[in-house]
Amino acid sequence: MTDPANTTASPAPKSMDAIMALCKRRGFIFQASDIYGGINGFWDYGPLGAQLKKNLRDAWWQDMIMRPCWGANGPNGQPVRCVPLETRIIQHPKVWEASGHVAGFNDPMVDDKETKGRFRADHLIGAFCAPIDAPAPTTAGLPAFTIVSSTPGEAVTILTDDKKLRKLLGVDGLEPVAASSSGQALFKCEYKGKPVHALFAQVPMETLKAQFGNIPSPFTGKPGSLTEPRQFNLMFKTYVGATASQDDIAYLRPETAQGIFVHFKNVADTTRVKMPFGIGNVGTSFRNEVTPRNFTFRSREFEQMELEFFCHPDESQEWYKFWRDFRMEWWKRIGLAGENLILREHDKDELSHYSCGTSDVEYRFPFTAPGFGELEGIAHRGNFDLTQHQKHSGAKMEYNDTERGEILPNGGRRGERYLPHCIEPAAGLDRGVLAILCEAYTKDESRPSPEFMKFNPRVAPIKAAVFPLVGKDGMPEVADKLHAELSARFWRLGAIECDEKQTIGKRYARMDEAGCPFCFTIDGDTLKDQTVTVRDRDTGGQQRIGIDKVSAFVADKIGE
Amino acid sequence: MTDPANTTASPAPKSMDAIMALCKRRGFIFQASDIYGGINGFWDYGPLGAQLKKNLRDAWWQDMIMRPCWGANGPNGQPVRCVPLETRIIQHPKVWEASGHVAGFNDPMVDDKETKGRFRADHLIGAFCAPIDAPAPTTAGLPAFTIVSSTPGEAVTILTDDKKLRKLLGVDGLEPVAASSSGQALFKCEYKGKPVHALFAQVPMETLKAQFGNIPSPFTGKPGSLTEPRQFNLMFKTYVGATASQDDIAYLRPETAQGIFVHFKNVADTTRVKMPFGIGNVGTSFRNEVTPRNFTFRSREFEQMELEFFCHPDESQEWYKFWRDFRMEWWKRIGLAGENLILREHDKDELSHYSCGTSDVEYRFPFTAPGFGELEGIAHRGNFDLTQHQKHSGAKMEYNDTERGEILPNGGRRGERYLPHCIEPAAGLDRGVLAILCEAYTKDESRPSPEFMKFNPRVAPIKAAVFPLVGKDGMPEVADKLHAELSARFWRLGAIECDEKQTIGKRYARMDEAGCPFCFTIDGDTLKDQTVTVRDRDTGGQQRIGIDKVSAFVADKIGE
Repeated sequence: MTDPANTTASPAPKSMDAIMALCKRRGFIFQASDIYGGINGFWDYGPLGAQLKKNLRDAWWQDMIMRPCWGANGPNGQPVRCVPLETRIIQHPKVWEASGHVAGFNDPMVDDKETKGRFRADHLIGAFCAPIDAPAPTTAGLPAFTIVSSTPGEAVTILTDDKKLRKLLGVDGLEPVAASSSGQALFKCEYKGKPVHALFAQVPMETLKAQFGNIPSPFTGKPGSLTEPRQFNLMFKTYVGATASQDDIAYLRPETAQGIFVHFKNVADTTRVKMPFGIGNVGTSFRNEVTPRNFTFRSREFEQMELEFFCHPDESQEWYKFWRDFRMEWWKRIGLAGENLILREHDKDELSHYSCGTSDVEYRFPFTAPGFGELEGIAHRGNFDLTQHQKHSGAKMEYNDTERGEILPNGGRRGERYLPHCIEPAAGLDRGVLAILCEAYTKDESRPSPEFMKFNPRVAPIKAAVFPLVGKDGMPEVADKLHAELSARFWRLGAIECDEKQTIGKRYARMDEAGCPFCFTIDGDTLKDQTVTVRDRDTGGQQRIGIDKVSAFVADKIGE
Repeated sequence: MTDPANTTASPAPKSMDAIMALCKRRGFIFQASDIYGGINGFWDYGPLGAQLKKNLRDAWWQDMIMRPCWGANGPNGQPVRCVPLETRIIQHPKVWEASGHVAGFNDPMVDDKETKGRFRADHLIGAFCAPIDAPAPTTAGLPAFTIVSSTPGEAVTILTDDKKLRKLLGVDGLEPVAASSSGQALFKCEYKGKPVHALFAQVPMETLKAQFGNIPSPFTGKPGSLTEPRQFNLMFKTYVGATASQDDIAYLRPETAQGIFVHFKNVADTTRVKMPFGIGNVGTSFRNEVTPRNFTFRSREFEQMELEFFCHPDESQEWYKFWRDFRMEWWKRIGLAGENLILREHDKDELSHYSCGTSDVEYRFPFTAPGFGELEGIAHRGNFDLTQHQKHSGAKMEYNDTERGEILPNGGRRGERYLPHCIEPAAGLDRGVLAILCEAYTKDESRPSPEFMKFNPRVAPIKAAVFPLVGKDGMPEVADKLHAELSARFWRLGAIECDEKQTIGKRYARMDEAGCPFCFTIDGDTLKDQTVTVRDRDTGGQQRIGIDKVSAFVADKIGE
């Protein structure tokens, strides 16, 4: 067994508190309704955050829909073809019966009858720990276990490389360094720096159910007040229409993907796309998480960017690999390249029953470090979804592929009807923004701003700043002119700042915190030789360029 | 009194059925969940519609936030400064108490006990009509009235120039040509081509309440089955968290504006914006309309583009006029110029109690013609909203304006604390898309496609198409190259089509229906002299230009 102490080679994680404080102070992210005390699991984006998020959303739209994969050919040797779609948050409730969300999108919940507290049963189970020098817990001994993490909100650090368990418990505090002992329910964990044994949800829920009366409440530490686990659906429910009857129940969508499947035939019939092709959908989804946490990582209202790429079953494996690799490349190019980003292929036993391959792009967030948290899942979904909607709606979902089937005497093809297979790259937009914020956050006490944001210029909310060194001698006028020129050229992509207040050092510091990649300063020399200084955010280094070259300089750096 | 027959100078309205059919056939708009029979009041956007909508949303963002008012100065002689914000659909429920939506966002509903049908009381009231040669109806005689429009869905054409009434009844079938008789409850109307008297909701609801038992049901025509009007809140309700208790009630926002007011201080404190400045917010809102109708015009889930522009109270009137005029100009430049677009200033008695000025930009939709329907409202909201949130949250909303107040000995200013006034240009994105679709829809039986879409190039979902005249002789290769060049340059703005199937006439016809403004065709001459034909969608005319000039040609036309 590996010693956990020797296996963590990654650098000390950045402070999430510091990142959140900067996000609030500079207007990237605010708690929703904060003047009313906030609402748990909901976050609003301030001016810088809203533009950063728009830039990431637009980058996805451009690179996935408008010019998929940067114009590269797919495994079939042809350019990749995708079209957009925009579907509603509220759909017919039968959509969610067909997709399985009404029946299966549940968390097992336990209530504490005394405190009215509620929590996920599998979170509790994850906390059944015993000191490592005590006898290892067994299912038979359940009621005798100590719940070492009985304070709500206090986390047990769990060290395991068991993929199924990682998936079950979410990503928090999981790091694949210690081995599971036997593939059974027992793992080596760490609690408050000490190794402990822990028993997890591999224990069948049925076995646990009978015991819940004896398990101490995590709220009071006293046994006898917990109910049996009950299923709680994560979809928000509402009523459409003036009568709030059972017939009027509707759900806020838990994902944007189903909107695509429902319209698969509409899109195939109304556009000239030919198999294989993708349909992209970007928008807000909702999950009534029982315990929203980790800033915007697990929130109740969030935005997704999902593509469903439809293809012939015979070609689905190569398209799966193609999308998996492209999506990893995309996140790298957006600014997450490095050891904090991994592509993780699911093990066979982690896969949904209908999937023959799923990979996650994962980022090492400060709150998951040394582990990773999911940014995007790329799943081979087979024809599961189209089959389900065909069954529940009665609508035919088959595609008539006129470029397949035997060759006819006239040189054409007989055609082949089939249910296409589907590759789904499904990315979290808010998670992407959060990863970019965490990656960009840099501490350097030696600089005027000891914290700065190293955004990739393409996603940076402010593209450039123009400063007159002093507010006189004609410098403000030159600055205004350059500012207007840059705004007129780059307005589609982000803001151009202009500021003449305070010292130039303070202005640089402010732009560093906002992640503005380049500052152009008009000084005394500008008036003589028509040059300005360019200051580079990351190095702090400066050079002079002609004022007529500034626009081209910015265009080059932001890839325009 | 003006004769209604002589006052309608506008051309015959376009057929809404034809527009909706084209929208479905070409993939602009689909009914949401249509394979499950649809869900009333919800519409999805197909590939062309999703891109058209994105282009309009982006145009607003660019022209309102990134480079407000196309770089023009405001009435204060300075460039207009606006910043974005992105707030959640679910906010703390107290937000909607403060805004007045919990108490006041209601429709008076009447139930038919026999049929379980439900309808808006004021819609029914609008239908109390009597032939013009019968004695004019009075409130005292209510039960004796004939409901001439007792078939659900059958509309009474109401001709009135009473603004308050127009607002009360919505826009359907209202045209300001006939005068009201006396400012009382009695109007001259027209029903099935005959003039009738009608009694409207100026009748106090209390007076009506006692009579509802005697009024014939619009579903059965029989009296005695209607309940009294009851208030029905238009906000969708849901529950946040695992316990669905009274404390967990939350609402889906009915507007994006309140998200701005709640964060007014956060934005002022974290950015360097100085008064006056605007905050923009774009996103989905929900209203549980009792009778969604007119395609996407009145739907239950819709997208808004709202700006709140904050300024000193003394300057608010001139900013109100500035924004009112700019917004009208904006819609014109987006492609709605002409007699179908009007700016309508509300009369004093139409205004909310806190507003000292409101104007609507209205478009003449086929279903409102000869009347108009609201696209955007520009309201002077005073300090009503900030006052309300200050009162309900206890948070101070005052702005400390350091550029006002008496001049101090050091040359600075003492500063002035005040609650800013607010000008709100609030536009409907879906309504904007619908107006653009209606305006663009053109019938011309003499063309290969008898219907085509005259989109402004800036919002057109497909910017250009490249066609090889035939699929041989090297033409497809030249077309592919040009297609790749145009895609790489214009991918941020819209799609570039490439198609070599079927006759060139059919390909042109298809692009005409999709509203693609320019088609470039590679033919035999291209291979000799490096020129291509440009076909103009609107005229069908063709000219030849050098293939190396195509990119600049497109850039010029779409204003890039």
